[in-house]
Amino acid sequence: MKTIPHLLAGLTACALLISNAAAQVPQGPYRNPDNKSQDDAGEGTYPVPYKMPVAAEITEQLNRIRGYMDSVTPTRIVSKKTGAPITDLSKPVADAIMEPANGDFGIMVYEMGVVHAGLIKAAEVTGDKRFTAMTERHLNFFKETQPYFRAQEDQFHLERANSFARFLDPRSLDDSGSMCAALMRARQARIGPDLSGMIATCSDWVANKQFRLADGTMARKRPQAVSLWADDMYMSIPALAEMGRSTGQRKYFDDAVNNVLTMSKRMFNPQLGIYTHGWHANATDIPRFYWARANAWAVLSMSDLLDVLPKNHPGYPKVLAQLRASLKGVAELQSGSGLWHQMIDRNDSYLETSASAIFTYTIAHAVNQGWVSPTTYGSVAQAGWAGLSTRINAQGQVEGTCVGTTLAGDQVYYYNRPTSPHALHGYGPTLLAGAEIIKLISNPAFKVEYKVRTYHYQPKDGAQTDYREHH
Amino acid sequence: MKTIPHLLAGLTACALLISNAAAQVPQGPYRNPDNKSQDDAGEGTYPVPYKMPVAAEITEQLNRIRGYMDSVTPTRIVSKKTGAPITDLSKPVADAIMEPANGDFGIMVYEMGVVHAGLIKAAEVTGDKRFTAMTERHLNFFKETQPYFRAQEDQFHLERANSFARFLDPRSLDDSGSMCAALMRARQARIGPDLSGMIATCSDWVANKQFRLADGTMARKRPQAVSLWADDMYMSIPALAEMGRSTGQRKYFDDAVNNVLTMSKRMFNPQLGIYTHGWHANATDIPRFYWARANAWAVLSMSDLLDVLPKNHPGYPKVLAQLRASLKGVAELQSGSGLWHQMIDRNDSYLETSASAIFTYTIAHAVNQGWVSPTTYGSVAQAGWAGLSTRINAQGQVEGTCVGTTLAGDQVYYYNRPTSPHALHGYGPTLLAGAEIIKLISNPAFKVEYKVRTYHYQPKDGAQTDYREHH
Amino acid sequence: MKTIPHLLAGLTACALLISNAAAQVPQGPYRNPDNKSQDDAGEGTYPVPYKMPVAAEITEQLNRIRGYMDSVTPTRIVSKKTGAPITDLSKPVADAIMEPANGDFGIMVYEMGVVHAGLIKAAEVTGDKRFTAMTERHLNFFKETQPYFRAQEDQFHLERANSFARFLDPRSLDDSGSMCAALMRARQARIGPDLSGMIATCSDWVANKQFRLADGTMARKRPQAVSLWADDMYMSIPALAEMGRSTGQRKYFDDAVNNVLTMSKRMFNPQLGIYTHGWHANATDIPRFYWARANAWAVLSMSDLLDVLPKNHPGYPKVLAQLRASLKGVAELQSGSGLWHQMIDRNDSYLETSASAIFTYTIAHAVNQGWVSPTTYGSVAQAGWAGLSTRINAQGQVEGTCVGTTLAGDQVYYYNRPTSPHALHGYGPTLLAGAEIIKLISNPAFKVEYKVRTYHYQPKDGAQTDYREHH
Repeated sequence: MKTIPHLLAGLTACALLISNAAAQVPQGPYRNPDNKSQDDAGEGTYPVPYKMPVAAEITEQLNRIRGYMDSVTPTRIVSKKTGAPITDLSKPVADAIMEPANGDFGIMVYEMGVVHAGLIKAAEVTGDKRFTAMTERHLNFFKETQPYFRAQEDQFHLERANSFARFLDPRSLDDSGSMCAALMRARQARIGPDLSGMIATCSDWVANKQFRLADGTMARKRPQAVSLWADDMYMSIPALAEMGRSTGQRKYFDDAVNNVLTMSKRMFNPQLGIYTHGWHANATDIPRFYWARANAWAVLSMSDLLDVLPKNHPGYPKVLAQLRASLKGVAELQSGSGLWHQMIDRNDSYLETSASAIFTYTIAHAVNQGWVSPTTYGSVAQAGWAGLSTRINAQGQVEGTCVGTTLAGDQVYYYNRPTSPHALHGYGPTLLAGAEIIKLISNPAFKVEYKVRTYHYQPKDGAQTDYREHH
Repeated sequence: MKTIPHLLAGLTACALLISNAAAQVPQGPYRNPDNKSQDDAGEGTYPVPYKMPVAAEITEQLNRIRGYMDSVTPTRIVSKKTGAPITDLSKPVADAIMEPANGDFGIMVYEMGVVHAGLIKAAEVTGDKRFTAMTERHLNFFKETQPYFRAQEDQFHLERANSFARFLDPRSLDDSGSMCAALMRARQARIGPDLSGMIATCSDWVANKQFRLADGTMARKRPQAVSLWADDMYMSIPALAEMGRSTGQRKYFDDAVNNVLTMSKRMFNPQLGIYTHGWHANATDIPRFYWARANAWAVLSMSDLLDVLPKNHPGYPKVLAQLRASLKGVAELQSGSGLWHQMIDRNDSYLETSASAIFTYTIAHAVNQGWVSPTTYGSVAQAGWAGLSTRINAQGQVEGTCVGTTLAGDQVYYYNRPTSPHALHGYGPTLLAGAEIIKLISNPAFKVEYKVRTYHYQPKDGAQTDYREHH
Repeated sequence: MKTIPHLLAGLTACALLISNAAAQVPQGPYRNPDNKSQDDAGEGTYPVPYKMPVAAEITEQLNRIRGYMDSVTPTRIVSKKTGAPITDLSKPVADAIMEPANGDFGIMVYEMGVVHAGLIKAAEVTGDKRFTAMTERHLNFFKETQPYFRAQEDQFHLERANSFARFLDPRSLDDSGSMCAALMRARQARIGPDLSGMIATCSDWVANKQFRLADGTMARKRPQAVSLWADDMYMSIPALAEMGRSTGQRKYFDDAVNNVLTMSKRMFNPQLGIYTHGWHANATDIPRFYWARANAWAVLSMSDLLDVLPKNHPGYPKVLAQLRASLKGVAELQSGSGLWHQMIDRNDSYLETSASAIFTYTIAHAVNQGWVSPTTYGSVAQAGWAGLSTRINAQGQVEGTCVGTTLAGDQVYYYNRPTSPHALHGYGPTLLAGAEIIKLISNPAFKVEYKVRTYHYQPKDGAQTDYREHH
């Protein structure tokens, strides 16, 4: 029995040596501070801080992330060769680029669209305008530099090497959809300058120019000649939804609803309640790969759509039903740490941050919006945050996020994708999740009872619990 | 760094055994002693003692548990303040309590009802009356002290602090059902004094006073205002069944059968063949949590009911079908150690003793009763005992049992429930399991062939196996 | 690295706990050499050599296996007592036996039939006749020694102790089917002498003498009086298929097709797409055990049948549909290392070589034959080889194969079957897999794009991918 402590020590040491498994966030054992009885034999320890979330602590964590993001996303034009700032915007030079972020975070990539969504949500929930200061700074920079990069392009034809390429010459939903939704949300929230030109460009791509199946489903020409990616639900539907909201035109809502349904028809497994990563027109009965982040994009897209879809739109109950079915499948696969696995159905794949953050946000939001019951879904969201909070380090980095991942055809690829604090995919979702958890724990529509060492979310429907029997 | 691959291999395989909550019972490697060929390359080693169970060894293990239980369950009245014995029962004092058990085992809690069931079964199977001596001692103590605690209550109104509270003022199925069934079984087996008064009290609670749904399903007002617990199948059905047996009144059997069916309708997943822990009237389509012990209580309750339900009762085939469906689901989730996991469908949750013991008992009993075929179910039960036997330590403690656990709403809670040799839930089931395994291995209705390094349970239906081809 | 001693202590403890898990083949971390960017943050490392397979490397590995097999399968008659060679074949002696192989590989066992299949395939794919030299040597030895062992049997009645027993007195499908198919394939490929007598003996057993159910399904009298083994699909169907090919008689194809369907009806789980190991006439609704190798024999038998079944046979589309359903189930359970688990549905059971090799072969072959799409199935097969290639050691041994395993009734048995490089079951399948992967990567019917760090198998149907959007 003497070897057991060594064994545990070995395992701990070992965790530090594993290269591309989960991020190396220090974890537990934690004892739940809500249990004031220090010698309660019925209380164990947890690998994550299992307790009632505290708004001030979450706010502090969100500020840490904000601070980190802010510090590593410069908004300057520099020379690609020398790194020297370029301040003369009157005449373009060929090697002018947006200054690269420390940590390789692009300020115009789709993941940054989610960061803005998270910052806007955090500002809304906390009332602290510092959260959107970065959004404002980025958007002002776009406003100021677009003419310069436009001129650079006209003169030098840099194509993808032009820092502003995504909005000068969009080529994909990745280029357009997420950031487009972010720009429209910022406009709605009166944050930043007028970017109607950029919004028109990206909206036009999403609504009119993206490659599609005959039935209107958003598609790609990779990795097979005609492929669907579940990720593209997020890369298109929220933008379409925001177009619907801002223009009032129903066609955008119709398109968004249609994509929920046609994507789900082909990629959703109703037995398991989860999505396979992709679908190919050339082979429709093939092995499925339940990559967690693709599932996350799918549920987030439906949530974003329901936020703005008129309740009397005929698609509303269908989207709601599909979101509910998906959230049930997702919630049933949550791990014992509150996080979700890289392959959502495989408990021997690593625990992945970005998907966990999106699930935590979406479940909490669905509870707050009344789309699903607080009963059980409330505690699932809380457990998600318990896990997720361990992934925010002292610098404000979000650790343990799977880097950019293509639609692949084997588990060896998916299981062994590296994780990195430089994977931007984890930042926006963690901001969203934290902000929504703050809303959750102060939501007047239900109450949270801490009883018998755990948390019970109860709808305030008049009926009362009774613990008189329990002692 | 050469050690890393080995380490990773080891980590994966070890993860289950050293899960932070699992009991650290010394285990294997064991070599099967039934294979007399010492250098058989086709024989490996096992983490548990995989072999034909030996009745004398099991009997010794059961006696060890009995001895431990007996030694830690005093039957005296003492002063809560000083611990001094109180022998004057003529006049109650406010601080008189039943002497606390070393190890915090209550002699009137529902788990002790299962201990009595196990002791009665062990006495029946082994013919050794020492097993029921403790039952007799406890029951005599109840008989002797009830008037004293009744008087104490009348005078001091201690409510839950009165040691006899469960039978003076029952408030829940936990207070009543399991111990009620035990008292009726003891009466049936002519063990101990006449406790008709206590039996009347607890029977009245179970049959008439427990909170129910409109359709008669046993319910609770926690953790939601109207909740069902799969555990309550055991906390009510065996007591109702014993009421049916002892009174001959069909209404009790009807009630028991009805609860099997209405509970199963709401909590049984027919695709997986297992029960979710609970159900809430306020949210009927929520994520499910397949806690092993809740499944164990469910199958044990059906088994106890079938033991006494008249075969011509219209509910008999329905209960039998439900038990068969459940045992198939359970058996298909047995781990490679013969034990079952805390979350029965999750192989990264720890191996839990009490559920494993109840499953081992119920499967063995179902084979012995002819409810399921010995084919395969016989070897599953035997494998269960191989695992379970490693959880009985030299002192007679049963290790690795999950402590008392509420109906919760997240996996973090369930995965991290501590285990303890002081969790009484493991003791009765292990006694039941061992006794039933002794019956299994001497059951004349089938034979066990040890062939090609494993065990084959064969119904004695006239047809013979033939190994002439094999060499 | 102060932690290393603890780490090693942990490993020691682990080794004790995991006893006979997977073979300890040195593995990773590997970096994909096809990614030329040495500092690509999007590239991780792999536990197996994830890369485009290289024909020359595979060929070298296959030659290593061939060399090992050749060196350890003597073809001499020796005295059982003294080990001295017996060269006088004119007069039989009682203790004459075929010289035992170093490593206990029998030259007449069913597993060797698969080795010959692998050697014939390797010769066909590589054009190197050395692969079939061993087959020729074994078959010549059979031709030369059959009269001697026949005479020995007539004189001494050794039964199973006669080295030639399987073909003098066959008693089971294990004795006959696999080697029978191998002898017919060798005849078809004009390898070795005329063994029509042996072929007649084994064909007669398979087609006419094996115990069957009333509907013609191949059955056994063990471990229950009437049992089916999924393994027996391979032990009969390929032989029947070769009888059909060599005689042109439809009845053999009918029998083979019938067995695919009747076996599948009883043992295939259509929800999961996998086979339970066995079925018993005396208990048809019992817990299922999804042993990987049984699944492997099932899919290999269907693949072998489709290789020769006339396309206009009415059973062709049924067998093809059943193979497709099975391969989908199998492919969806591939592990993150490319290998499959001993219990195919249990990721805490060890990674097993022989099943992994058969799956890799069958999936690659199904792609090459056009039975399933290259899309996804191509990369699954490639990933299978990445894992499998780590199991071939420097001596040419194939490691990590589960030894001979009976049809059992508990997970403890299956999980703890030892693995051994002396388990012949892994050799033939690995030869088959390697040879078929060579065909796969040079198959003109599709192309393999290495893009975004992974492999995309694309049917050459005219449609093109487009990565212009991606940068």
